[in-house]
Amino acid sequence: MKDKFYQYIQTLQDTITSKLEEIDGKAKFQEDIWKRPEGGGGRTRVIENGSVFEKGGVNISGVHGPLPKAMQSYFKVDDVDFFACGLSLVLHPENPMVPTVHANWRYFEMYDKSGEIVDSWFGGGQDLTPYYLFEEDAAHFHKVCKTSCDHHHPDFYSTYKKKCDEYFYNAHRGEARGIGGLFFDYCRKTDDMSMQDWYDFVTEVGDSFLEAYVPIVERRKELPYNQNHRDWQEVRRGRYVEFNLVHDKGTLFGLKTNGRIESILMSLPPRVQWKYDHHPKPESPEEKLVKVLKKPVEWQ
Amino acid sequence: MKDKFYQYIQTLQDTITSKLEEIDGKAKFQEDIWKRPEGGGGRTRVIENGSVFEKGGVNISGVHGPLPKAMQSYFKVDDVDFFACGLSLVLHPENPMVPTVHANWRYFEMYDKSGEIVDSWFGGGQDLTPYYLFEEDAAHFHKVCKTSCDHHHPDFYSTYKKKCDEYFYNAHRGEARGIGGLFFDYCRKTDDMSMQDWYDFVTEVGDSFLEAYVPIVERRKELPYNQNHRDWQEVRRGRYVEFNLVHDKGTLFGLKTNGRIESILMSLPPRVQWKYDHHPKPESPEEKLVKVLKKPVEWQ
Repeated sequence: MKDKFYQYIQTLQDTITSKLEEIDGKAKFQEDIWKRPEGGGGRTRVIENGSVFEKGGVNISGVHGPLPKAMQSYFKVDDVDFFACGLSLVLHPENPMVPTVHANWRYFEMYDKSGEIVDSWFGGGQDLTPYYLFEEDAAHFHKVCKTSCDHHHPDFYSTYKKKCDEYFYNAHRGEARGIGGLFFDYCRKTDDMSMQDWYDFVTEVGDSFLEAYVPIVERRKELPYNQNHRDWQEVRRGRYVEFNLVHDKGTLFGLKTNGRIESILMSLPPRVQWKYDHHPKPESPEEKLVKVLKKPVEWQ
Repeated sequence: MKDKFYQYIQTLQDTITSKLEEIDGKAKFQEDIWKRPEGGGGRTRVIENGSVFEKGGVNISGVHGPLPKAMQSYFKVDDVDFFACGLSLVLHPENPMVPTVHANWRYFEMYDKSGEIVDSWFGGGQDLTPYYLFEEDAAHFHKVCKTSCDHHHPDFYSTYKKKCDEYFYNAHRGEARGIGGLFFDYCRKTDDMSMQDWYDFVTEVGDSFLEAYVPIVERRKELPYNQNHRDWQEVRRGRYVEFNLVHDKGTLFGLKTNGRIESILMSLPPRVQWKYDHHPKPESPEEKLVKVLKKPVEWQ
Protein backbone atom coordinates (compact mmCIF):
# COMPACT_ATOMS: atom_id res chain seq x y z
CA MET A 1 0.00 0.00 0.00
CA LYS A 2 2.75 2.46 0.89
CA ASP A 3 4.52 1.99 -2.43
CA LYS A 4 1.27 2.19 -4.35
CA PHE A 5 0.23 5.41 -2.62
CA TYR A 6 3.67 6.98 -2.97
CA GLN A 7 3.58 6.14 -6.68
CA TYR A 8 0.14 7.73 -6.85
CA ILE A 9 1.20 11.03 -5.27
CA GLN A 10 4.29 11.22 -7.49
CA THR A 11 2.10 11.00 -10.58
CA LEU A 12 -0.48 13.36 -9.10
CA GLN A 13 2.23 15.94 -8.36
CA ASP A 14 3.25 15.82 -12.03
CA THR A 15 -0.35 16.14 -13.21
CA ILE A 16 -1.12 19.06 -10.93
CA THR A 17 2.07 21.03 -11.52
CA SER A 18 1.81 20.64 -15.32
CA LYS A 19 -1.75 21.90 -15.33
CA LEU A 20 -0.92 24.83 -13.03
CA GLU A 21 2.03 25.86 -15.19
CA GLU A 22 -0.23 25.73 -18.23
CA ILE A 23 -2.77 28.01 -16.49
CA ASP A 24 -0.11 30.39 -15.24
CA GLY A 25 1.54 30.70 -18.63
CA LYS A 26 4.55 32.57 -17.20
CA ALA A 27 6.20 30.97 -14.17
CA LYS A 28 7.50 27.43 -13.84
CA PHE A 29 7.77 25.31 -10.72
CA GLN A 30 11.23 25.17 -9.21
CA GLU A 31 12.04 21.68 -7.95
CA ASP A 32 14.07 20.80 -4.85
CA ILE A 33 14.81 17.20 -4.01
CA TRP A 34 15.71 16.83 -0.35
CA LYS A 35 16.72 14.01 1.94
CA ARG A 36 15.77 13.57 5.58
CA PRO A 37 18.78 12.54 7.67
CA GLU A 38 16.71 10.01 9.65
CA GLY A 39 15.22 8.38 6.52
CA GLY A 40 13.32 9.34 3.38
CA GLY A 41 12.93 12.75 1.80
CA GLY A 42 10.81 14.67 -0.62
CA ARG A 43 10.31 16.55 -3.84
CA THR A 44 9.31 20.17 -3.26
CA ARG A 45 7.98 22.18 -6.20
CA VAL A 46 7.44 25.88 -5.74
CA ILE A 47 6.12 28.50 -8.15
CA GLU A 48 6.70 32.22 -7.51
CA ASN A 49 5.83 35.50 -9.21
CA GLY A 50 3.68 33.92 -11.88
CA SER A 51 1.02 35.76 -13.82
CA VAL A 52 -1.70 33.88 -11.91
CA PHE A 53 0.11 32.33 -8.94
CA GLU A 54 2.03 34.77 -6.79
CA LYS A 55 3.37 31.88 -4.73
CA GLY A 56 2.54 28.24 -4.37
CA GLY A 57 3.95 24.85 -3.56
CA VAL A 58 2.99 21.33 -4.56
CA ASN A 59 5.15 19.05 -2.44
CA ILE A 60 5.46 15.35 -1.88
CA SER A 61 7.42 13.58 0.80
CA GLY A 62 7.91 10.05 2.04
CA VAL A 63 9.67 9.75 5.38
CA HIS A 64 10.42 6.82 7.66
CA GLY A 65 12.47 5.69 10.63
CA PRO A 66 11.98 5.80 14.39
CA LEU A 67 8.90 7.85 15.30
CA PRO A 68 10.12 11.23 16.64
CA LYS A 69 9.58 11.78 20.38
CA ALA A 70 7.07 14.60 19.85
CA MET A 71 4.94 12.29 17.70
CA GLN A 72 5.25 9.40 20.14
CA SER A 73 3.60 11.47 22.84
CA TYR A 74 1.02 12.83 20.40
CA PHE A 75 0.02 9.37 19.19
CA LYS A 76 0.45 7.91 22.70
CA VAL A 77 2.71 5.12 21.49
CA ASP A 78 6.16 3.94 22.54
CA ASP A 79 9.32 3.88 20.58
CA VAL A 80 8.07 2.50 17.23
CA ASP A 81 9.04 2.87 13.57
CA PHE A 82 6.85 4.70 11.10
CA PHE A 83 6.38 5.53 7.45
CA ALA A 84 4.46 8.59 6.28
CA CYS A 85 3.96 10.01 2.84
CA GLY A 86 1.75 12.64 1.34
CA LEU A 87 1.18 15.43 -1.10
CA SER A 88 0.62 18.94 0.25
CA LEU A 89 -0.26 21.94 -1.83
CA VAL A 90 -1.03 25.58 -1.21
CA LEU A 91 -1.60 28.14 -3.97
CA HIS A 92 -1.70 31.89 -3.35
CA PRO A 93 -2.96 33.65 -6.48
CA GLU A 94 -2.03 37.25 -7.20
CA ASN A 95 -5.55 38.39 -8.08
CA PRO A 96 -7.64 38.85 -4.90
CA MET A 97 -10.69 37.56 -6.80
CA VAL A 98 -9.07 34.12 -7.09
CA PRO A 99 -9.20 32.11 -3.87
CA THR A 100 -6.26 30.49 -2.15
CA VAL A 101 -6.50 26.72 -2.06
CA HIS A 102 -4.92 24.10 0.18
CA ALA A 103 -4.97 20.34 -0.19
CA ASN A 104 -3.23 17.41 1.43
CA TRP A 105 -3.54 13.65 1.00
CA ARG A 106 -1.45 11.39 3.17
CA TYR A 107 -0.85 7.83 4.33
CA PHE A 108 0.72 6.67 7.59
CA GLU A 109 2.02 3.29 8.83
CA MET A 110 3.42 2.23 12.21
CA TYR A 111 5.42 -0.92 12.81
CA ASP A 112 6.31 -3.16 15.71
CA LYS A 113 9.89 -4.24 16.35
CA SER A 114 9.58 -7.17 13.95
CA GLY A 115 8.54 -4.78 11.18
CA GLU A 116 4.87 -5.83 11.14
CA ILE A 117 2.35 -3.05 10.44
CA VAL A 118 0.50 -2.42 13.70
CA ASP A 119 -1.50 0.57 12.54
CA SER A 120 -2.14 2.42 9.28
CA TRP A 121 -4.46 5.16 8.10
CA PHE A 122 -5.18 7.71 5.42
CA GLY A 123 -5.90 11.38 5.95
CA GLY A 124 -6.30 14.55 3.99
CA GLY A 125 -8.68 17.03 2.49
CA GLN A 126 -8.90 20.24 0.54
CA ASP A 127 -10.29 23.65 1.39
CA LEU A 128 -10.81 27.00 -0.25
CA THR A 129 -9.96 30.45 1.15
CA PRO A 130 -11.54 33.26 -0.86
CA TYR A 131 -10.85 36.96 -0.30
CA TYR A 132 -14.02 37.93 -2.15
CA LEU A 133 -16.89 35.50 -1.99
CA PHE A 134 -18.45 34.24 -5.20
CA GLU A 135 -21.13 31.86 -4.02
CA GLU A 136 -21.03 30.06 -7.32
CA ASP A 137 -17.35 29.19 -6.71
CA ALA A 138 -17.97 27.92 -3.20
CA ALA A 139 -20.89 25.81 -4.43
CA HIS A 140 -18.80 24.39 -7.28
CA PHE A 141 -15.88 23.48 -5.00
CA HIS A 142 -18.17 21.75 -2.53
CA LYS A 143 -20.09 20.02 -5.31
CA VAL A 144 -16.92 18.36 -6.59
CA CYS A 145 -16.03 17.38 -3.01
CA LYS A 146 -19.49 15.91 -2.50
CA THR A 147 -19.47 13.95 -5.76
CA SER A 148 -16.17 12.25 -4.86
CA CYS A 149 -17.45 11.45 -1.39
CA ASP A 150 -20.83 10.14 -2.52
CA HIS A 151 -19.18 7.46 -4.65
CA HIS A 152 -17.82 5.93 -1.45
CA HIS A 153 -20.27 6.55 1.38
CA PRO A 154 -23.45 8.59 1.75
CA ASP A 155 -22.23 10.17 5.02
CA PHE A 156 -18.70 11.09 3.96
CA TYR A 157 -19.44 14.53 2.54
CA SER A 158 -21.48 15.80 5.49
CA THR A 159 -19.04 14.32 8.02
CA TYR A 160 -15.85 15.55 6.39
CA LYS A 161 -17.30 18.94 5.44
CA LYS A 162 -18.14 19.48 9.12
CA LYS A 163 -14.68 18.33 10.23
CA CYS A 164 -13.15 20.79 7.78
CA ASP A 165 -15.18 23.69 9.20
CA GLU A 166 -14.11 22.66 12.69
CA TYR A 167 -10.44 22.16 11.91
CA PHE A 168 -9.66 25.24 9.80
CA TYR A 169 -10.93 27.56 12.48
CA ASN A 170 -9.10 30.55 13.95
CA ALA A 171 -10.51 30.20 17.46
CA HIS A 172 -8.79 33.41 18.61
CA ARG A 173 -10.65 35.31 15.86
CA GLY A 174 -13.93 33.41 16.10
CA GLU A 175 -13.92 32.77 12.36
CA ALA A 176 -13.12 30.04 9.86
CA ARG A 177 -9.98 30.30 7.72
CA GLY A 178 -12.05 29.92 4.57
CA ILE A 179 -15.23 28.42 3.21
CA GLY A 180 -14.15 24.85 3.88
CA GLY A 181 -14.18 21.68 1.84
CA LEU A 182 -13.19 18.28 3.20
CA PHE A 183 -11.04 17.16 6.12
CA PHE A 184 -10.60 13.52 7.12
CA ASP A 185 -8.03 11.75 9.28
CA TYR A 186 -7.33 8.37 10.87
CA CYS A 187 -9.20 6.58 8.08
CA ARG A 188 -8.52 3.01 9.23
CA LYS A 189 -9.80 -0.39 8.17
CA THR A 190 -13.35 -1.05 9.40
CA ASP A 191 -16.01 -3.65 8.65
CA ASP A 192 -17.27 -1.39 5.86
CA MET A 193 -14.02 0.03 4.52
CA SER A 194 -10.89 -1.94 3.66
CA MET A 195 -7.60 -0.07 3.24
CA GLN A 196 -8.11 -0.53 -0.50
CA ASP A 197 -11.52 1.15 -0.17
CA TRP A 198 -9.86 4.08 1.62
CA TYR A 199 -7.19 4.23 -1.07
CA ASP A 200 -9.92 4.38 -3.71
CA PHE A 201 -11.66 7.18 -1.81
CA VAL A 202 -8.55 9.28 -1.14
CA THR A 203 -7.27 8.95 -4.70
CA GLU A 204 -10.66 9.89 -6.11
CA VAL A 205 -10.58 13.04 -3.98
CA GLY A 206 -7.01 13.72 -5.13
CA ASP A 207 -7.94 13.14 -8.76
CA SER A 208 -10.81 15.60 -8.45
CA PHE A 209 -8.66 18.46 -7.16
CA LEU A 210 -8.06 20.13 -10.51
CA GLU A 211 -11.73 19.82 -11.41
CA ALA A 212 -12.62 21.48 -8.09
CA TYR A 213 -10.18 24.40 -8.37
CA VAL A 214 -9.26 25.12 -11.98
CA PRO A 215 -12.69 26.30 -13.21
CA ILE A 216 -12.71 28.86 -10.38
CA VAL A 217 -9.27 30.14 -11.34
CA GLU A 218 -10.28 30.36 -15.00
CA ARG A 219 -13.43 32.34 -14.14
CA ARG A 220 -11.72 34.88 -11.86
CA LYS A 221 -8.14 35.32 -12.96
CA GLU A 222 -8.86 38.13 -15.42
CA LEU A 223 -11.20 40.10 -13.15
CA PRO A 224 -10.07 43.66 -12.52
CA TYR A 225 -8.96 44.68 -9.04
CA ASN A 226 -7.46 47.72 -7.34
CA GLN A 227 -5.17 48.44 -4.40
CA ASN A 228 -8.06 48.27 -1.93
CA HIS A 229 -8.86 44.73 -3.02
CA ARG A 230 -5.23 43.85 -2.78
CA ASP A 231 -4.90 45.36 0.73
CA TRP A 232 -7.87 43.32 1.87
CA GLN A 233 -6.37 40.16 0.37
CA GLU A 234 -3.10 40.83 2.24
CA VAL A 235 -4.89 41.46 5.54
CA ARG A 236 -6.86 38.23 5.12
CA ARG A 237 -3.64 36.41 4.27
CA GLY A 238 -2.53 37.49 7.76
CA ARG A 239 -5.31 35.33 9.14
CA TYR A 240 -4.00 32.48 7.00
CA VAL A 241 -0.59 32.89 8.62
CA GLU A 242 -2.16 33.03 12.07
CA PHE A 243 -3.97 29.75 11.46
CA ASN A 244 -0.95 27.96 10.05
CA LEU A 245 1.47 29.09 12.77
CA VAL A 246 -0.82 29.01 15.81
CA HIS A 247 -3.29 26.20 15.15
CA ASP A 248 -2.26 23.93 12.27
CA LYS A 249 -1.07 20.62 13.68
CA GLY A 250 0.80 19.68 10.51
CA THR A 251 2.85 22.87 10.52
CA LEU A 252 3.64 22.74 14.23
CA PHE A 253 4.60 19.08 13.99
CA GLY A 254 6.92 19.84 11.14
CA LEU A 255 8.56 22.69 13.04
CA LYS A 256 8.95 20.64 16.19
CA THR A 257 10.14 17.41 14.56
CA ASN A 258 12.91 18.97 12.53
CA GLY A 259 11.10 18.78 9.19
CA ARG A 260 12.39 20.64 6.14
CA ILE A 261 11.45 24.18 7.16
CA GLU A 262 11.26 25.66 3.67
CA SER A 263 8.94 22.89 2.47
CA ILE A 264 6.68 23.34 5.49
CA LEU A 265 6.58 27.12 5.39
CA MET A 266 6.05 27.33 1.62
CA SER A 267 2.38 27.50 2.70
CA LEU A 268 2.86 31.06 3.98
CA PRO A 269 1.61 33.78 1.62
CA PRO A 270 4.11 35.96 -0.27
CA ARG A 271 2.89 39.36 0.92
CA VAL A 272 0.91 39.92 4.07
CA GLN A 273 -0.37 42.85 6.11
CA TRP A 274 -1.44 43.29 9.69
CA LYS A 275 -3.43 46.44 10.41
CA TYR A 276 -4.54 47.30 13.92
CA ASP A 277 -8.20 46.51 14.64
CA HIS A 278 -9.21 46.42 10.99
CA HIS A 279 -12.89 45.90 10.20
CA PRO A 280 -14.57 45.90 6.80
CA LYS A 281 -17.19 48.56 6.08
CA PRO A 282 -20.79 47.59 6.80
CA GLU A 283 -22.56 46.03 3.80
CA SER A 284 -19.30 45.79 1.82
CA PRO A 285 -18.18 42.67 -0.09
CA GLU A 286 -15.42 42.34 2.52
CA GLU A 287 -17.97 42.23 5.32
CA LYS A 288 -20.05 39.71 3.38
CA LEU A 289 -17.08 37.34 3.39
CA VAL A 290 -16.43 37.77 7.11
CA LYS A 291 -20.06 37.04 7.95
CA VAL A 292 -19.83 33.72 6.12
CA LEU A 293 -16.55 32.89 7.87
CA LYS A 294 -18.17 33.50 11.24
CA LYS A 295 -20.97 31.06 10.47
CA PRO A 296 -20.31 28.09 8.16
CA VAL A 297 -22.70 27.70 5.25
CA GLU A 298 -24.10 24.49 3.74
CA TRP A 299 -22.95 24.88 0.16
CA GLN A 300 -24.55 21.63 -1.05
CA MET B 1 3.04 47.19 45.28
CA LYS B 2 0.47 46.44 42.60
CA ASP B 3 -1.01 49.93 42.75
CA LYS B 4 2.43 51.51 42.79
CA PHE B 5 3.59 49.53 39.76
CA TYR B 6 0.38 50.12 37.82
CA GLN B 7 0.74 53.85 38.52
CA TYR B 8 4.32 53.60 37.28
CA ILE B 9 3.44 51.95 33.96
CA GLN B 10 0.63 54.45 33.36
CA THR B 11 3.08 57.31 33.68
CA LEU B 12 5.72 55.46 31.65
CA GLN B 13 3.21 54.85 28.84
CA ASP B 14 2.56 58.60 28.70
CA THR B 15 6.28 59.42 28.70
CA ILE B 16 7.09 56.91 25.97
CA THR B 17 4.17 57.71 23.67
CA SER B 18 4.79 61.49 23.93
CA LYS B 19 8.43 61.07 23.02
CA LEU B 20 7.67 58.72 20.14
CA GLU B 21 5.05 61.10 18.72
CA GLU B 22 7.60 63.90 18.93
CA ILE B 23 10.15 61.81 16.99
CA ASP B 24 7.62 60.68 14.43
CA GLY B 25 6.37 64.19 13.80
CA LYS B 26 3.44 62.98 11.71
CA ALA B 27 1.34 60.21 13.26
CA LYS B 28 -0.35 60.20 16.66
CA PHE B 29 -1.14 57.24 18.87
CA GLN B 30 -4.74 56.08 18.72
CA GLU B 31 -6.00 55.10 22.17
CA ASP B 32 -8.41 52.27 22.98
CA ILE B 33 -9.57 51.69 26.52
CA TRP B 34 -10.87 48.17 26.95
CA LYS B 35 -12.40 46.14 29.77
CA ARG B 36 -11.86 42.48 30.45
CA PRO B 37 -15.16 40.74 31.26
CA GLU B 38 -13.55 38.70 34.07
CA GLY B 39 -11.90 41.75 35.69
CA GLY B 40 -9.61 44.63 34.80
CA GLY B 41 -8.74 45.97 31.38
CA GLY B 42 -6.20 48.06 29.59
CA ARG B 43 -5.20 51.12 27.61
CA THR B 44 -3.93 50.25 24.15
CA ARG B 45 -2.12 52.94 22.16
CA VAL B 46 -1.28 52.24 18.55
CA ILE B 47 0.53 54.36 15.98
CA GLU B 48 0.26 53.58 12.24
CA ASN B 49 1.60 55.03 9.01
CA GLY B 50 3.87 57.55 10.68
CA SER B 51 6.88 59.11 9.04
CA VAL B 52 9.19 57.04 11.26
CA PHE B 53 6.95 54.35 12.75
CA GLU B 54 5.06 52.29 10.21
CA LYS B 55 3.24 50.51 13.04
CA GLY B 56 3.68 50.27 16.76
CA GLY B 57 1.87 49.80 20.01
CA VAL B 58 2.58 50.86 23.58
CA ASN B 59 0.00 49.11 25.71
CA ILE B 60 -0.71 48.77 29.38
CA SER B 61 -3.09 46.38 31.06
CA GLY B 62 -4.05 45.39 34.56
CA VAL B 63 -6.15 42.26 34.84
CA HIS B 64 -7.40 40.24 37.78
CA GLY B 65 -9.85 37.55 38.83
CA PRO B 66 -9.73 33.76 38.94
CA LEU B 67 -6.58 32.44 37.25
CA PRO B 68 -7.61 31.05 33.82
CA LYS B 69 -7.40 27.24 33.47
CA ALA B 70 -4.60 27.38 30.90
CA MET B 71 -2.49 29.44 33.31
CA GLN B 72 -3.31 27.17 36.27
CA SER B 73 -1.74 24.23 34.51
CA TYR B 74 1.18 26.34 33.30
CA PHE B 75 1.97 27.62 36.79
CA LYS B 76 1.04 24.25 38.34
CA VAL B 77 -1.34 25.82 40.85
CA ASP B 78 -4.98 25.19 41.71
CA ASP B 79 -7.93 27.44 41.39
CA VAL B 80 -6.47 30.74 42.73
CA ASP B 81 -7.02 34.43 42.11
CA PHE B 82 -4.43 36.58 40.40
CA PHE B 83 -3.51 40.12 39.47
CA ALA B 84 -1.21 40.92 36.56
CA CYS B 85 -0.22 44.23 35.06
CA GLY B 86 2.37 45.35 32.60
CA LEU B 87 3.45 47.57 29.77
CA SER B 88 4.21 45.98 26.40
CA LEU B 89 5.58 47.80 23.42
CA VAL B 90 6.63 46.92 19.90
CA LEU B 91 7.72 49.46 17.30
CA HIS B 92 8.11 48.64 13.61
CA PRO B 93 9.86 51.54 11.85
CA GLU B 94 9.36 52.15 8.14
CA ASN B 95 13.04 52.62 7.33
CA PRO B 96 14.84 49.24 7.23
CA MET B 97 17.93 50.91 8.73
CA VAL B 98 16.01 51.52 11.98
CA PRO B 99 15.61 48.40 14.13
CA THR B 100 12.36 47.08 15.52
CA VAL B 101 12.23 47.17 19.29
CA HIS B 102 10.21 45.24 21.83
CA ALA B 103 9.92 45.80 25.57
CA ASN B 104 7.76 44.52 28.36
CA TRP B 105 7.75 45.10 32.12
CA ARG B 106 5.23 43.28 34.25
CA TYR B 107 4.19 42.38 37.78
CA PHE B 108 2.19 39.36 38.90
CA GLU B 109 0.45 38.43 42.20
CA MET B 110 -1.38 35.28 43.25
CA TYR B 111 -3.74 35.05 46.22
CA ASP B 112 -5.12 32.37 48.47
CA LYS B 113 -8.83 32.14 49.21
CA SER B 114 -8.56 34.65 52.07
CA GLY B 115 -7.02 37.17 49.66
CA GLU B 116 -3.49 36.94 51.07
CA ILE B 117 -0.65 37.23 48.55
CA VAL B 118 0.92 33.76 48.24
CA ASP B 119 3.31 34.57 45.41
CA SER B 120 4.44 37.64 43.49
CA TRP B 121 7.10 38.43 40.95
CA PHE B 122 8.35 40.88 38.37
CA GLY B 123 9.36 40.08 34.83
CA GLY B 124 10.27 41.82 31.64
CA GLY B 125 13.00 42.95 29.35
CA GLN B 126 13.72 44.69 26.09
CA ASP B 127 15.33 43.55 22.89
CA LEU B 128 16.33 44.92 19.52
CA THR B 129 15.68 43.44 16.07
CA PRO B 130 17.73 45.14 13.35
CA TYR B 131 17.35 44.45 9.62
CA TYR B 132 20.77 45.91 8.91
CA LEU B 133 23.36 45.59 11.62
CA PHE B 134 25.14 48.71 12.88
CA GLU B 135 27.43 47.40 15.57
CA GLU B 136 27.51 50.79 17.21
CA ASP B 137 23.72 50.59 17.72
CA ALA B 138 23.84 47.10 19.21
CA ALA B 139 26.65 48.15 21.55
CA HIS B 140 24.73 51.26 22.62
CA PHE B 141 21.53 49.35 23.33
CA HIS B 142 23.37 46.76 25.39
CA LYS B 143 25.38 49.41 27.19
CA VAL B 144 22.23 51.09 28.46
CA CYS B 145 20.89 47.67 29.50
CA LYS B 146 24.12 46.91 31.34
CA THR B 147 24.24 50.24 33.15
CA SER B 148 20.72 49.77 34.52
CA CYS B 149 21.56 46.23 35.61
CA ASP B 150 24.90 47.11 37.20
CA HIS B 151 23.22 49.53 39.62
CA HIS B 152 21.40 46.55 41.12
CA HIS B 153 23.58 43.48 40.89
CA PRO B 154 26.90 42.68 39.17
CA ASP B 155 25.48 39.47 37.64
CA PHE B 156 22.20 40.82 36.32
CA TYR B 157 23.41 41.98 32.92
CA SER B 158 25.24 38.78 31.99
CA THR B 159 22.42 36.59 33.32
CA TYR B 160 19.56 38.46 31.69
CA LYS B 161 21.43 39.07 28.44
CA LYS B 162 21.90 35.32 28.14
CA LYS B 163 18.26 34.60 28.98
CA CYS B 164 17.24 37.06 26.28
CA ASP B 165 19.37 35.29 23.66
CA GLU B 166 17.85 31.98 24.73
CA TYR B 167 14.25 33.15 24.83
CA PHE B 168 14.00 35.15 21.60
CA TYR B 169 15.20 32.24 19.52
CA ASN B 170 13.52 30.81 16.43
CA ALA B 171 14.52 27.21 17.07
CA HIS B 172 13.01 26.06 13.75
CA ARG B 173 15.33 28.50 11.95
CA GLY B 174 18.35 28.05 14.18
CA GLU B 175 18.67 31.79 14.66
CA ALA B 176 17.88 34.51 17.18
CA ARG B 177 15.01 36.92 16.51
CA GLY B 178 17.34 39.86 16.97
CA ILE B 179 20.50 40.99 18.72
CA GLY B 180 19.02 40.60 22.18
CA GLY B 181 18.98 42.81 25.24
CA LEU B 182 17.51 41.74 28.58
CA PHE B 183 14.97 39.11 29.61
CA PHE B 184 14.09 38.35 33.22
CA ASP B 185 11.17 36.55 34.82
CA TYR B 186 9.98 35.22 38.18
CA CYS B 187 11.96 37.91 40.02
CA ARG B 188 10.82 37.02 43.54
CA LYS B 189 11.86 38.15 47.02
CA THR B 190 15.19 36.62 48.09
CA ASP B 191 17.66 37.24 50.91
CA ASP B 192 19.40 39.76 48.67
CA MET B 193 16.46 41.33 46.87
CA SER B 194 13.24 42.59 48.47
CA MET B 195 10.22 43.22 46.27
CA GLN B 196 11.05 46.93 46.60
CA ASP B 197 14.56 46.19 45.30
CA TRP B 198 13.02 44.41 42.30
CA TYR B 199 10.66 47.32 41.76
CA ASP B 200 13.65 49.68 41.75
CA PHE B 201 15.44 47.47 39.24
CA VAL B 202 12.52 47.00 36.86
CA THR B 203 11.58 50.66 36.92
CA GLU B 204 15.16 51.69 36.26
CA VAL B 205 15.17 49.42 33.21
CA GLY B 206 11.80 50.86 32.11
CA ASP B 207 13.03 54.41 32.63
CA SER B 208 16.09 53.69 30.50
CA PHE B 209 14.11 52.47 27.50
CA LEU B 210 14.01 55.77 25.63
CA GLU B 211 17.72 56.31 26.27
CA ALA B 212 18.41 52.84 24.85
CA TYR B 213 16.31 53.19 21.70
CA VAL B 214 15.83 56.84 20.74
CA PRO B 215 19.46 57.66 19.84
CA ILE B 216 19.44 54.71 17.43
CA VAL B 217 16.26 55.94 15.77
CA GLU B 218 17.66 59.46 15.49
CA ARG B 219 20.87 58.19 13.89
CA ARG B 220 19.19 55.95 11.30
CA LYS B 221 15.81 57.37 10.44
CA GLU B 222 17.03 59.60 7.61
CA LEU B 223 19.32 57.02 6.00
CA PRO B 224 18.48 56.31 2.37
CA TYR B 225 17.12 52.91 1.38
CA ASN B 226 15.76 51.22 -1.71
CA GLN B 227 13.26 48.48 -2.54
CA ASN B 228 15.85 45.75 -1.97
CA HIS B 229 16.42 46.95 1.59
CA ARG B 230 12.71 47.10 2.11
CA ASP B 231 12.17 43.58 0.73
CA TRP B 232 14.80 42.25 3.12
CA GLN B 233 13.15 44.05 6.03
CA GLU B 234 9.80 42.50 5.12
CA VAL B 235 11.28 39.01 4.80
CA ARG B 236 12.95 39.39 8.20
CA ARG B 237 9.68 40.65 9.64
CA GLY B 238 8.33 37.24 8.61
CA ARG B 239 10.73 35.71 11.11
CA TYR B 240 9.39 38.12 13.71
CA VAL B 241 5.88 36.82 13.02
CA GLU B 242 7.10 33.24 13.19
CA PHE B 243 8.63 33.83 16.61
CA ASN B 244 5.61 35.63 18.02
CA LEU B 245 3.04 33.12 16.76
CA VAL B 246 4.99 29.87 17.20
CA HIS B 247 7.23 30.45 20.22
CA ASP B 248 6.29 33.51 22.25
CA LYS B 249 4.64 32.41 25.47
CA GLY B 250 3.02 35.80 26.09
CA THR B 251 1.31 35.82 22.71
CA LEU B 252 0.13 32.22 22.91
CA PHE B 253 -1.14 32.73 26.45
CA GLY B 254 -3.07 35.77 25.32
CA LEU B 255 -4.61 33.89 22.41
CA LYS B 256 -5.53 30.90 24.55
CA THR B 257 -6.86 32.79 27.58
CA ASN B 258 -9.25 34.99 25.65
CA GLY B 259 -7.11 38.14 25.87
CA ARG B 260 -7.90 41.20 23.76
CA ILE B 261 -6.73 39.92 20.38
CA GLU B 262 -6.04 43.29 18.78
CA SER B 263 -3.88 44.39 21.72
CA ILE B 264 -1.92 41.16 21.63
CA LEU B 265 -1.45 41.05 17.87
CA MET B 266 -0.50 44.71 17.56
CA SER B 267 3.02 43.27 17.82
CA LEU B 268 2.76 41.87 14.28
CA PRO B 269 4.49 43.94 11.60
CA PRO B 270 2.45 45.96 9.12
CA ARG B 271 3.85 44.47 5.90
CA VAL B 272 5.55 41.12 5.67
CA GLN B 273 6.88 38.82 2.97
CA TRP B 274 7.62 35.13 2.80
CA LYS B 275 9.82 34.06 -0.10
CA TYR B 276 10.65 30.42 -0.68
CA ASP B 277 14.13 29.39 0.51
CA HIS B 278 15.48 32.92 0.55
CA HIS B 279 19.16 33.37 1.40
CA PRO B 280 21.16 36.58 1.43
CA LYS B 281 24.09 36.88 -0.98
CA PRO B 282 27.49 35.86 0.38
CA GLU B 283 29.41 38.76 1.98
CA SER B 284 26.34 41.04 1.80
CA PRO B 285 25.14 43.23 4.70
CA GLU B 286 22.11 40.94 4.87
CA GLU B 287 24.33 37.90 5.36
CA LYS B 288 26.34 39.75 7.99
CA LEU B 289 23.18 40.16 10.05
CA VAL B 290 22.19 36.50 9.71
CA LYS B 291 25.63 35.35 10.84
CA VAL B 292 25.27 37.36 14.04
CA LEU B 293 21.76 35.99 14.61
CA LYS B 294 23.09 32.46 14.32
CA LYS B 295 25.69 33.06 16.98
CA PRO B 296 24.99 35.58 19.76
CA VAL B 297 27.62 38.26 20.27
CA GLU B 298 28.86 39.79 23.55
CA TRP B 299 28.13 43.44 22.89
CA GLN B 300 29.52 44.63 26.22
